[in-house]
Amino acid sequence: MRFDLDLSMDVLRRSPGIFLELLGNIDEGWSRAAEGPETFSPFDVVGHLIDGEETDWIPRSRIILAGGTNPVFEPYDRFRHRDRNAQRSLASLLQEFAALRASNLEVLGSWHVTGADLDRQGTHPSLGLVTLKQLLAAWVVHDLGHIAQAVRVMAKQYRGEIGPWEPYLPVVTDRPVPRS
Amino acid sequence: MRFDLDLSMDVLRRSPGIFLELLGNIDEGWSRAAEGPETFSPFDVVGHLIDGEETDWIPRSRIILAGGTNPVFEPYDRFRHRDRNAQRSLASLLQEFAALRASNLEVLGSWHVTGADLDRQGTHPSLGLVTLKQLLAAWVVHDLGHIAQAVRVMAKQYRGEIGPWEPYLPVVTDRPVPRS
Repeated sequence: MRFDLDLSMDVLRRSPGIFLELLGNIDEGWSRAAEGPETFSPFDVVGHLIDGEETDWIPRSRIILAGGTNPVFEPYDRFRHRDRNAQRSLASLLQEFAALRASNLEVLGSWHVTGADLDRQGTHPSLGLVTLKQLLAAWVVHDLGHIAQAVRVMAKQYRGEIGPWEPYLPVVTDRPVPRS
Repeated sequence: MRFDLDLSMDVLRRSPGIFLELLGNIDEGWSRAAEGPETFSPFDVVGHLIDGEETDWIPRSRIILAGGTNPVFEPYDRFRHRDRNAQRSLASLLQEFAALRASNLEVLGSWHVTGADLDRQGTHPSLGLVTLKQLLAAWVVHDLGHIAQAVRVMAKQYRGEIGPWEPYLPVVTDRPVPRS
């Protein structure tokens, strides 16, 4: 499938609702569980997505489109959410993510990005030159990957309860060495 | 985490809404894509979950609770949905899944399953003896695994569009030999 801005925005628009359906008012047994040390719980995932809204996707797109002579992105702190959200409720994070995402998609839409814009480049601090198109595609894939992570982490909590079904339900053994 | 009936039903209740948020009115570029031959598209996943509602989880629970002398489950046809849904729209499948799931959870609730019931056994055609608790836990994990699958399949459609981000977004390379 080739990158398409409208189809990408359609997927990005869905994520807050998906997380609300998955995690709204859920027991902390599900939302605070993880799959190993230094990995994200579903609660952490929502916080990490908020960090992306505030510091990654739109700020980096802006740097590319501003067209300065040195369009270098700020590094992305993957653990910013830990301190930031220590006292927060999951309900308030879900609401915040929805508001930030809606506002960021409005910003993106307001730019009326062209095909030529999608080929403009910025410099990622570790990956080097990337295009706006790659950045926006990565935003979509990043969302989907973290939805997969949240449900995988939840599934793993029942690994000890499914008895002989384990080989039929590979989600409980995916990522034996978890990457947060 | 130990099996808990209420916490399990809470997760099971969420799946139709999650699939509706993820797939409702989505472009077929996303919903009909797969990750390899003989693997499920998101459309197939919804059909497969409907099959589970009609032929697996509740029918098998019923066999266990009926307490007959030979509580053997029918085999589960993982490809029943292919012919069944060939002419169906995704919208109608999403609606059907929601109705079947709601009705099945009502049935499950009406049984007032006890701790002793959860330890009752049936015979799985290939796995042998399983308890009702394992069956119900497998239902939860099965849902979560198929949510993970649907979003993974979608993410993989953009594998060629994310450029140097690929090593940072492992969802596009998960399950290199896909299991449907």
